[in-house]
Amino acid sequence: MNYCSACGAPVTKKVPDGDNLPRFVCEACRAIHYHNPKIVAGCIPEWNGDILLCRRAIEPKSGLWTFPAGFMEIGESIEQAAARETFEEAQAQMERISLFAVLSLPHIGQAYLVFRGPMRSSDFGAGEESLEVQLFSLSAIPWDQIAFPVVRDVLRRYVEDVTRGEFQVHVASLPDCL
Amino acid sequence: MNYCSACGAPVTKKVPDGDNLPRFVCEACRAIHYHNPKIVAGCIPEWNGDILLCRRAIEPKSGLWTFPAGFMEIGESIEQAAARETFEEAQAQMERISLFAVLSLPHIGQAYLVFRGPMRSSDFGAGEESLEVQLFSLSAIPWDQIAFPVVRDVLRRYVEDVTRGEFQVHVASLPDCL
Repeated sequence: MNYCSACGAPVTKKVPDGDNLPRFVCEACRAIHYHNPKIVAGCIPEWNGDILLCRRAIEPKSGLWTFPAGFMEIGESIEQAAARETFEEAQAQMERISLFAVLSLPHIGQAYLVFRGPMRSSDFGAGEESLEVQLFSLSAIPWDQIAFPVVRDVLRRYVEDVTRGEFQVHVASLPDCL
Repeated sequence: MNYCSACGAPVTKKVPDGDNLPRFVCEACRAIHYHNPKIVAGCIPEWNGDILLCRRAIEPKSGLWTFPAGFMEIGESIEQAAARETFEEAQAQMERISLFAVLSLPHIGQAYLVFRGPMRSSDFGAGEESLEVQLFSLSAIPWDQIAFPVVRDVLRRYVEDVTRGEFQVHVASLPDCL
């Protein structure tokens, strides 16, 4: 941030009165510009014991695999965001979804909220941001071609829960996990 | 947003190529400015069956009661944000915290992630943003002086879970709840 988005004057980075963190502040119109973490809403779609993964068609990590996930938008709930991303990236509709993981990535200002649940039908396909979409048995997850460590972490927790026979809501921070 | 925060030129609101929602776009430097929902991290501190609430010293809703909560910052986890807000607003330290509720407020672009758990000791006090801080038995919660409907909704779920004798992780959307 170089300029005030309200009035167009240059901003400076300083700790505002009564605050304890540096913010971008406009000396002209006195606006304080806060930057906060973003929510990535994701979903693990399930079908007959398999899970649906997408091979990314966009950077970063184009060509590698992930569950459907993307930035939540203003005007939708987190659940709606997860279902929307699943439809956009994997053309799959969810029968219902349950919260599975809340993972913070503090160093990049992101929080992953990941759901899981059965697909409504076996229909799926590659959305614009996917090269291909495929059902994987848990023993065939392409561990060496996963797009991001946070995706690998979520999938590892998922396989562990399925193996144990019980899903829990995972809450964790992945401080060094890009 | 009136001006591009990168180059200072005026922005226009339009749907960028390949997108499906209007964004603030800079025709000069081609930056696309996304606005995403913010995470409010909160905590219900527990002590001997009572819960700790704060009477707000700041607008909006100054003078009314809430559990400690505030905007998550970049560089911290959601759990850290909840504990930090608890210390800032109620000068209380948490022994441990568990996720209790994930509530979306789509119309104002906020997601409340609320934790609960025992305080480390009975020490607490009013932080700068609180007029007073007080332990309440669940039968004495000041329901007619609660700051926001989402706070009332969370506390209602909390009392129900305590009454039933089992905590769950609540996931819901409060579409019309300001």
